[in-house]
Amino acid sequence: MGLRMGDPGLSYRDAGVDLDAADRAKRRLKTLVEATRDRYTLSELGLFGGLYQVPDGLSQPVLVASADGVGTKLKIAFEAARHGTVGQCLVNHCVNDILVQGARPLFFLDYLATGQMDEEVVAEVVGGVAVACAENGCALLGGETAQMPDFYAQEEYDLAGFIVGVVERDRVLDGRGIRPGDVLLGLASTGLHTNGYTLARRIVFDVMGLRVEDDLPGTGRTVADELLSVHRSYLRPLAPLLESGTLRGLAHITGGGIPGNLPRVLPNGVGAVVDRGAWKVPAVFRTLQEGGRVERGEMDRVFNMGVGMIAVVRPEDVDRAADRIQEGGVDVYPIGTTEAGAGVRYTG
Amino acid sequence: MGLRMGDPGLSYRDAGVDLDAADRAKRRLKTLVEATRDRYTLSELGLFGGLYQVPDGLSQPVLVASADGVGTKLKIAFEAARHGTVGQCLVNHCVNDILVQGARPLFFLDYLATGQMDEEVVAEVVGGVAVACAENGCALLGGETAQMPDFYAQEEYDLAGFIVGVVERDRVLDGRGIRPGDVLLGLASTGLHTNGYTLARRIVFDVMGLRVEDDLPGTGRTVADELLSVHRSYLRPLAPLLESGTLRGLAHITGGGIPGNLPRVLPNGVGAVVDRGAWKVPAVFRTLQEGGRVERGEMDRVFNMGVGMIAVVRPEDVDRAADRIQEGGVDVYPIGTTEAGAGVRYTG
Repeated sequence: MGLRMGDPGLSYRDAGVDLDAADRAKRRLKTLVEATRDRYTLSELGLFGGLYQVPDGLSQPVLVASADGVGTKLKIAFEAARHGTVGQCLVNHCVNDILVQGARPLFFLDYLATGQMDEEVVAEVVGGVAVACAENGCALLGGETAQMPDFYAQEEYDLAGFIVGVVERDRVLDGRGIRPGDVLLGLASTGLHTNGYTLARRIVFDVMGLRVEDDLPGTGRTVADELLSVHRSYLRPLAPLLESGTLRGLAHITGGGIPGNLPRVLPNGVGAVVDRGAWKVPAVFRTLQEGGRVERGEMDRVFNMGVGMIAVVRPEDVDRAADRIQEGGVDVYPIGTTEAGAGVRYTG
Repeated sequence: MGLRMGDPGLSYRDAGVDLDAADRAKRRLKTLVEATRDRYTLSELGLFGGLYQVPDGLSQPVLVASADGVGTKLKIAFEAARHGTVGQCLVNHCVNDILVQGARPLFFLDYLATGQMDEEVVAEVVGGVAVACAENGCALLGGETAQMPDFYAQEEYDLAGFIVGVVERDRVLDGRGIRPGDVLLGLASTGLHTNGYTLARRIVFDVMGLRVEDDLPGTGRTVADELLSVHRSYLRPLAPLLESGTLRGLAHITGGGIPGNLPRVLPNGVGAVVDRGAWKVPAVFRTLQEGGRVERGEMDRVFNMGVGMIAVVRPEDVDRAADRIQEGGVDVYPIGTTEAGAGVRYTG
């Protein structure tokens, strides 16, 4: 407390902010970002804002934008000191969020806030972001890396992202065409994706007393491997079906589970019935349910239970749609149907 | 640690996440957001992604996007329990960041991460975001409010934002037209804006031993009033000059100060000379410099020193440009000129 006579004056670095480290980290990111550029990307990183030309060939282009974070899945990354996948989870999550409205991604920006700038960790995190951007054909247009000492713990950070995609106005997918009797196709998740981690961590670490390097019972994998599984992007398996106009609606199953997300795309007067027996719930969910003695309804509302995306199609399109999705590398099951009514009810 | 026989099972709420509170907060936000809608805003809040039609009447529309945070200015808001202005700072910062490339704002999304969802605080923070969006003619298209217990302290949160604006491709402002002998117009800041808070807090709280409710010497204001001053948007004073093509370049003076930001818009072979005597440095910066015995060069590199934006204009346009800016409600001073060379040097 207080400066004495003769003490040197304060600098930003003394206060915990290293502008040079921030500059070095930014230069390293530049290379990672280059790989995601496309012909519409007009700017280079380091300008105040990123420039992206609205793609040609659309008569009434509608931008679809979404913001998201990774949530406390980050805590697993901290514990395991593995920072390369959370950025992929973030990008894929955002891609799925605009995909459900029929949009393909154009560009992405990230917000990374750290206590102290660790160049290695920043490069690993943003490297994951860049990898997933490249996979999804999405330009990493910019971002902010904020140093906030005494805000985040030394080895911790928060990560958020922002995506903009585009869809032709008359191709916006809003579920309006869904009718009772349509079929719900459930697309397999890779695990928890990015939801329910606060409860999952309570169960795995506090109740079951496990560490990240321990085996997670029933899964044949370590806690870290299972809980850091990359949130999957459904762009590749679903893009051909969007293109052909086969999809009546899409629901990304995130926080709130099927009951919290599927009704958001169902028109008034349409509900859904989901057959619990139609797909095999992955081991991780059973382990969490038993470990935490979590009620089944609570499980359904917090976790995706193995279904990361639901596609709604006409009964006559089921086989063709399922084939396309499977060809895109994702397992798919008919998990139920729509019906006159409201909300989601389970059978089985 | 561990559940005993007969203990009730765990729920998401037990683990610290209240989905109902999150829903209630979202419903309150909806009203705030309505006021920012314009004719291109196609979606309502609550969908997965926000929809915004690319405005008509542009032949080659270029999107300009930027991500930013509020930094540790948030700590002052926490201390003072005043949450209504930080959202304004964030939006205005983002508006300025794309303005310097010639873009007017279209839409904004926010990311608010909290330890525990306090509906009142969330509404106050996002209320500030919505107010500034309305002021800047920018739709608040969506956002994410994340509950991350044991990540953020009880009463704390982080706030980041993402903006997308638009500019006609041949009107992108990139400083290419700047020549030696052009004039630097300095637009007055309202204080620290959102930069240098880690150092400012060290000085004010640790070295000077002040509290948020104390007077900040020299300023005639309390620490909270001074340090929570809203980061100003320069859209209104600068829009007419962008429209008329009068501006050769714009630099938003944020972290890095004038030496860190002005060169980013100067073409190769062009430097700048800034006359320290040309404007009156606001009291808060003198108080911080003396309080922390901060070297002058460090002050210049960390703070805006009273100049929040620099507009570069031809000598013959100075009077007209300065009049327009002053009419837009912002004080403006000729603070220097461009010259053959590189970087920024100070005189006076």
